[in-house]
Amino acid sequence: MAIVALAGGIGASKLLLGLSRAMDPRELTVIVNTGDDLELHGLEVSPDVDTVVYTLAGLANPETGWGLRDETWSAHEMLGRYGAPTWFRLGDRDLATHLVRTSRLRGGATPTDVTGELAQALGVRARILPMSDRPVRTRVRTPGGWLDFQEWFVARAHADDALEIRFDGAEDARPTERVLSAVSSADALMIAPSNPFVSIGTILALPGMVAALTGAAAPVVAVSPIVAGVALKGPADRMLETLGGESSALGVARHYAGRYPGLLDGLVVDRADEAQATSIEALGIRALATSAVMRDDADRARLAGEVLAFAAELQTGRNASLGTRQEV
Amino acid sequence: MAIVALAGGIGASKLLLGLSRAMDPRELTVIVNTGDDLELHGLEVSPDVDTVVYTLAGLANPETGWGLRDETWSAHEMLGRYGAPTWFRLGDRDLATHLVRTSRLRGGATPTDVTGELAQALGVRARILPMSDRPVRTRVRTPGGWLDFQEWFVARAHADDALEIRFDGAEDARPTERVLSAVSSADALMIAPSNPFVSIGTILALPGMVAALTGAAAPVVAVSPIVAGVALKGPADRMLETLGGESSALGVARHYAGRYPGLLDGLVVDRADEAQATSIEALGIRALATSAVMRDDADRARLAGEVLAFAAELQTGRNASLGTRQEV
Repeated sequence: MAIVALAGGIGASKLLLGLSRAMDPRELTVIVNTGDDLELHGLEVSPDVDTVVYTLAGLANPETGWGLRDETWSAHEMLGRYGAPTWFRLGDRDLATHLVRTSRLRGGATPTDVTGELAQALGVRARILPMSDRPVRTRVRTPGGWLDFQEWFVARAHADDALEIRFDGAEDARPTERVLSAVSSADALMIAPSNPFVSIGTILALPGMVAALTGAAAPVVAVSPIVAGVALKGPADRMLETLGGESSALGVARHYAGRYPGLLDGLVVDRADEAQATSIEALGIRALATSAVMRDDADRARLAGEVLAFAAELQTGRNASLGTRQEV
Repeated sequence: MAIVALAGGIGASKLLLGLSRAMDPRELTVIVNTGDDLELHGLEVSPDVDTVVYTLAGLANPETGWGLRDETWSAHEMLGRYGAPTWFRLGDRDLATHLVRTSRLRGGATPTDVTGELAQALGVRARILPMSDRPVRTRVRTPGGWLDFQEWFVARAHADDALEIRFDGAEDARPTERVLSAVSSADALMIAPSNPFVSIGTILALPGMVAALTGAAAPVVAVSPIVAGVALKGPADRMLETLGGESSALGVARHYAGRYPGLLDGLVVDRADEAQATSIEALGIRALATSAVMRDDADRARLAGEVLAFAAELQTGRNASLGTRQEV
């Protein structure tokens, strides 16, 4: 069963880890947001891709969610001594990733090539694909003006209200052939509990991406990043409000239904939000309420299994309704 | 008293440290070999410049002579995991230097600018000048063919006989204006006990460099890198033999006198080589025999003081003989 998941970084990682254990990881393809990418100290840094690679390699730092476990910070300290920018912390082990990536990219390799090489070197069996080989840069309008994504997210700790999101370069970017081919041949398409605006929204901003997903044979199932009105990670809850919606599982459903009609077949919500299921289903999105907060490996594997089963059920439903239509 | 020293890396560092303590370090200018520079993991690495900067900053690794003290090796280990080349070890703290250098060079700064910035950030008060802002790459012919300097020196641990030395790019390089101006206004010019072929030889291969040194008002005093027939550091002893000379203080004098006639006014040798003083002086080079092996800070400061006094004495001699000539 070929599973394709759209993902940002930290918010997605627990579910991805669960999926990679609940299924044959070689059947899992993760399409990762690259709108957060930045150049730092002359290095090409791709935070979400690295978070996904490190997570699936079992090397992620369990305390931060980003970066590598058993990390040291010698280069970071020395960079500070040189007066280089240190607002975006790069660990010593992590630096090796950026050095190899930058070197390979300058030598003509694509982000897709490099991601595959890095993941393979670290023993990742799932296929991790950057959403595009062309640069896209997410920018956020705040009351003080437009900020680069990482300036807003890391340097200013997303303290400023996000009033508008822009994806510079998206109109000239394209999902890669490997992304489109994975989507079209998937048995289930998942949207990880990542930020709907600046993680998933970036992937969906690529020309042709929404059409590829809605046109695919497989159902699209999202996992709500909002539980009981609060984002599990990051600023998704505040963004739902400042960008014109509400911070709730239903707000997530309305966001997807409003911006991408027909995209979502199902939404997995926490039991705390079970009362919203009827309203979600009224939008044409099947809802599954379960325990959606992942505290340990057992939680991750269980939720992943439930999401897979939900997708299979939706697929059967689609086939049945297709059958019905054909009968008409 | 403005002192200018020509230097490689490790071989020079003890004397430079002594000099910087025996005099006002702001009066010390070090002109450093850059023929050992290499690009590694996409970074511009300048090993001799860094060794001199780290040494004068008091941050050099006392065990290796190269790199930084209190170093960690996390990036190096991770680079190995990615299959990147690891024969040239870059520590984590050291990596910060290469990141800053590479970033600044790509942004249009010169090696001279960057070296000044790095040295200043680390509190170095002496002026450290790369010999040129143009690239020069030292290559070594061995029985197996031509090798890049670091391939010969580090990767193969200078095990192959050096049969010929070449300085690629030297004909198109030039000493910088700052180098030439430091030389012409110096009160004493010193040649550190560095490798005469692949450290000092590289600097002297720059068009106009020998003429600038011989034409300068100040005397040129070298410190022998050979003591009792053996190189204090590195392969200078074997090179003196395989490149057609002999491994001795006299061999060093003959090398300089033969290739660069009139360059050396004085040579400081160890007491162990005192018997060679007469033969050295027969080449027109004044010899000073003293304890030239530096084991501790006291040794370094004492030798530096003696070298400074020797240079001052030679300067007086030059002035006297100039006076004599004028009288004729």
